[in-house]
Amino acid sequence: MTVTKQRNREFVRTFFTSPAAVDGEDTAEMARKASQLRGMQAPDVWVPDNEDATAPNMRDEGAENIVEVVSENGAEFPGEIHPRIVWHRNDPATRYRGLQHMLTIADPEDGAIEHIDGFVVPEVGDVDDWKKADEFITIVENEYGLEEGSIAMSVIVESGESEIATSRLREEVGKPSNNLDQRLFMLVDGEVDYTKAMRGMTPTGELPPWPELRHNTSRGASAADLIAVDGPYDDIRDVEGYKDRMVENRAKGQIGIWALTPGQVEVANTNPLPPESGHWFFEVDDREIDLEDDDGVQVYEGDRVSLEETGDGYRLTVGTDTHELADEDELKEALVDIASYVPSLGDIVDSMEEFEAAKEAGKGAIAMTQATTLRIDGVEVDIARDRMWDEATYQAAQTPINLFQDVHANRPDQHEELEELYGAELVERATQVGQ
Amino acid sequence: MTVTKQRNREFVRTFFTSPAAVDGEDTAEMARKASQLRGMQAPDVWVPDNEDATAPNMRDEGAENIVEVVSENGAEFPGEIHPRIVWHRNDPATRYRGLQHMLTIADPEDGAIEHIDGFVVPEVGDVDDWKKADEFITIVENEYGLEEGSIAMSVIVESGESEIATSRLREEVGKPSNNLDQRLFMLVDGEVDYTKAMRGMTPTGELPPWPELRHNTSRGASAADLIAVDGPYDDIRDVEGYKDRMVENRAKGQIGIWALTPGQVEVANTNPLPPESGHWFFEVDDREIDLEDDDGVQVYEGDRVSLEETGDGYRLTVGTDTHELADEDELKEALVDIASYVPSLGDIVDSMEEFEAAKEAGKGAIAMTQATTLRIDGVEVDIARDRMWDEATYQAAQTPINLFQDVHANRPDQHEELEELYGAELVERATQVGQ
Amino acid sequence: MTVTKQRNREFVRTFFTSPAAVDGEDTAEMARKASQLRGMQAPDVWVPDNEDATAPNMRDEGAENIVEVVSENGAEFPGEIHPRIVWHRNDPATRYRGLQHMLTIADPEDGAIEHIDGFVVPEVGDVDDWKKADEFITIVENEYGLEEGSIAMSVIVESGESEIATSRLREEVGKPSNNLDQRLFMLVDGEVDYTKAMRGMTPTGELPPWPELRHNTSRGASAADLIAVDGPYDDIRDVEGYKDRMVENRAKGQIGIWALTPGQVEVANTNPLPPESGHWFFEVDDREIDLEDDDGVQVYEGDRVSLEETGDGYRLTVGTDTHELADEDELKEALVDIASYVPSLGDIVDSMEEFEAAKEAGKGAIAMTQATTLRIDGVEVDIARDRMWDEATYQAAQTPINLFQDVHANRPDQHEELEELYGAELVERATQVGQ
Repeated sequence: MTVTKQRNREFVRTFFTSPAAVDGEDTAEMARKASQLRGMQAPDVWVPDNEDATAPNMRDEGAENIVEVVSENGAEFPGEIHPRIVWHRNDPATRYRGLQHMLTIADPEDGAIEHIDGFVVPEVGDVDDWKKADEFITIVENEYGLEEGSIAMSVIVESGESEIATSRLREEVGKPSNNLDQRLFMLVDGEVDYTKAMRGMTPTGELPPWPELRHNTSRGASAADLIAVDGPYDDIRDVEGYKDRMVENRAKGQIGIWALTPGQVEVANTNPLPPESGHWFFEVDDREIDLEDDDGVQVYEGDRVSLEETGDGYRLTVGTDTHELADEDELKEALVDIASYVPSLGDIVDSMEEFEAAKEAGKGAIAMTQATTLRIDGVEVDIARDRMWDEATYQAAQTPINLFQDVHANRPDQHEELEELYGAELVERATQVGQ
Repeated sequence: MTVTKQRNREFVRTFFTSPAAVDGEDTAEMARKASQLRGMQAPDVWVPDNEDATAPNMRDEGAENIVEVVSENGAEFPGEIHPRIVWHRNDPATRYRGLQHMLTIADPEDGAIEHIDGFVVPEVGDVDDWKKADEFITIVENEYGLEEGSIAMSVIVESGESEIATSRLREEVGKPSNNLDQRLFMLVDGEVDYTKAMRGMTPTGELPPWPELRHNTSRGASAADLIAVDGPYDDIRDVEGYKDRMVENRAKGQIGIWALTPGQVEVANTNPLPPESGHWFFEVDDREIDLEDDDGVQVYEGDRVSLEETGDGYRLTVGTDTHELADEDELKEALVDIASYVPSLGDIVDSMEEFEAAKEAGKGAIAMTQATTLRIDGVEVDIARDRMWDEATYQAAQTPINLFQDVHANRPDQHEELEELYGAELVERATQVGQ
Repeated sequence: MTVTKQRNREFVRTFFTSPAAVDGEDTAEMARKASQLRGMQAPDVWVPDNEDATAPNMRDEGAENIVEVVSENGAEFPGEIHPRIVWHRNDPATRYRGLQHMLTIADPEDGAIEHIDGFVVPEVGDVDDWKKADEFITIVENEYGLEEGSIAMSVIVESGESEIATSRLREEVGKPSNNLDQRLFMLVDGEVDYTKAMRGMTPTGELPPWPELRHNTSRGASAADLIAVDGPYDDIRDVEGYKDRMVENRAKGQIGIWALTPGQVEVANTNPLPPESGHWFFEVDDREIDLEDDDGVQVYEGDRVSLEETGDGYRLTVGTDTHELADEDELKEALVDIASYVPSLGDIVDSMEEFEAAKEAGKGAIAMTQATTLRIDGVEVDIARDRMWDEATYQAAQTPINLFQDVHANRPDQHEELEELYGAELVERATQVGQ
């Protein structure tokens, strides 16, 4: 175990909690099952949860279960392991119990700690409260002869004061009296308890969207070189909603998300990676309408967009707006306005390689073209859109590739699935580009 | 008067301003009328306004009027009383005038201060400016032999620097040189002056929505254990817009709102309480469409959603999306996706009691079911949706109940109206649940 | 050059970058062309860009080009001149190179510095990093005998830590060891690099909207008396999108925007000024639909709103909602709900003058009426909406007028175009009102 162990991952796609102890004959059953997940169903970070998912009166047993399961299966588990312990900014008894559970779990004689990457601390308050948790982990490390700072610490941001703390980290973690700089790893939003702390209400009882919380968590993570993870998505049945949430989150720089089931893990492991094939869509009245690919031609057949040739040009209807267009150039321009393209992994790798070659040849900026043929109401039109790429564009485009490379480097158990999805040759190129 | 007087209320629904002095024979007329409001028309906090609502040259008289009206009617007024005085972060003359008005209003010989809970300080700047106002109030308390910290202080957040200050409160209010910790009560947004300070512009001249301001105010209130209140809604005629604003605010944890008329007070006192009866709605293209209850069947008769049985299943159209569904199970699933339920006060109390009983019986999580029959284009379908409740869900759901209980405990003048609306038995249960 | 030189402008509409050096025979060609812009095509701030727009290996030449072009054409250039130098929070070599370029550009013997108003520093980190740039500029001033604080400094906010820094400025700029208080001028968002720093991703590769960044930048500018400017809008072809972005920005108090071409400069110089003539629109399902003015009657001819007289009243359809209205009063009320007016410069000046006259006459608040005749499906209806104006409304409405006056005072080269657009008489009144 080294001081920088917690920095193995640059990205965390999935944060999967499972109860540390459940009712029944084998109270470790759920934890044991989770420890056996592999491939796309195995999370980047597995969180044996000895807090909310485990009944208060079973948490001492939960700590024992974590030791048992992790010492047995931890070596083979493909992701990182970060148990969640109990903590509360307003309750010293809970904090002391959290310390005791950490002492139980981390005892090197029991053989679990060598497979454990860190602890997750819920219900933290302002930065001074984070320092208390840091101090307890330092004591655990010292007690057991582990290197100071070697056990990572992640927090659940689920109060106003901890949200505010995310903007103070950069100036606090370097102070000589704490080890937060080496220790901090993930900032995880916890919207259920955050809603309670903020006294948020919605008519249906659903959680508010809290866009500012997610922004601030992501920003705090970026400023302090940490990883931002969104909280649980309760409606397990609603896969589309979960995916939409992830798209929103990524536009905020929050790339990881909580998962409550192996099914959610699989969706959340896959979703942030660029798609296997690109596709075109129209944006009409703030809604995205996917086009069907018919052998390279993008076909629209609904009734939100219609097109007809008139004697002297074209009539294009988009939603309830009708445009009379004098010639094909005007038509192309109007269609470029509503058409967008989602690039595939291959497209991104192509563009990056192309830019690298241009840079090698002494060019600072080049135009990348996206072109296709659209067919609307039987009328076919070729469109093309250019985007200038310079060094900054190139670097911003690199984020999904960095993610891909981080996944590839750290999750050999997913190589087979990646190659099945993208093909071995593209996987190879994607791991090389930009290096 | 005790040091914690300002903590009587955990929630403030309504912040009602009335001019301290107006032109005319009886310049105290508006203030006197306001002091006589009772029941749902009486605000949780009444603010005799000796700042913007009173002409600059009438403010000395305004301070006298406050003394006169409050000493006369304050004892019977059912809400708290917090006069607004003049203040400006950039103008010492205005601040000194504010001190003089507080000295006038708080003189115990005049008999008003015993009914006054605090002062509202507008146009504050950074935290150091808040401390100046705190110091002036401390001086007033000391001058008149009142307990230090007994007069509450609320601020209007209407500048960038005071918005920033809301995230500093937790670390500043505990410092030994100020009394802000006991004194601070409400953080109130003031969007008109905020817009000016931020130099915001909209094409029509309407106020920008400032979602981040409202978030930050609410977050600062949560972190420092204060109460967040939104600013005035100018278009008094537009009751629906006012209600929509309150729904938005509550999703941000900002439960209180300014009221400019007794009519607005009534709407804003009632709106945050759970409804008397629940109702179902469809969500189509981001719009909510209420269903009509026909004897327990929820009927939709518009043209945004249509349903027909085909030979081999169902065709469901939602907006412009058409779904072909193979059987009733698929249909139910598709309808569950678009249908939501707004629970009544009774529903919430039922759910909480049910969860409490389950917890008593040793269960940590139970499924709550919302079920109904839908009728669309004459076709009837039974649907049901489950939601898992655990301790965290329970506690988050408690916010409207805590609000209800706070209202019930502090506003006996509204008991009759609450019982008329909900029935005496439900009111009784709602005051007991979760205690 | 005086210490307050950088305060010449209260508003910056346009921040126009041009490469300091390009490939070719005359590497200063682009910079020279930019220096010759006049009138609406000339920006309020011209930024000869010796960072991203200039290839890394041409930046020493870029610094020389800036000297050459500005010493030649700077005296006649109608806007301010703020070259962008290289900088990076994580790279001392880049920072030192930035210092060297500033020493090159500012040498008084070369005659450029007397026309240069400040430097733009990209890629800054937390406030301590801003202080390093401030110190380098102080050294440059001292080296060349320029007054301390006379060279302005603007930063590009393009990292989480610099976004956080925007809320610390007020307390940091006054400290005795830095000159930031006199020096700071613009806070400019840089969304491309910010997206990279935050690791934001979107499916299409477009930039995320980052609303919170823009809010925080604007708020930081307001709190520290600086000017907020939004980053580049890449899709040069998309003028409507550029305009929409500016409307959004102004609702956040961010009035300036980056421009990449003289065409964008012209749009961005014009857009924040009130329009020459007002117009009415309907708001239906969150979309704005402009009405056609037919000789004072506002005509709607689309199919989103329809109106017919029934035997006993009116049937009004708005989107898919149908309202049965008993009489003309109800109809008027329903139409007022969906109709809004965008006032012209003349309307705003009229309202302000009217309010000033009322104030003079001792009135603190007056109702302003917006009235017109609507024609829908051949039915004509007169509507009127009132808005109360008090001192606060008046001051908030003043922002566009202050902008107009700032432009008029500082950009004599645009007088002719302003008079062509608005007429000389209105321009005269607009420069006088509110003074």
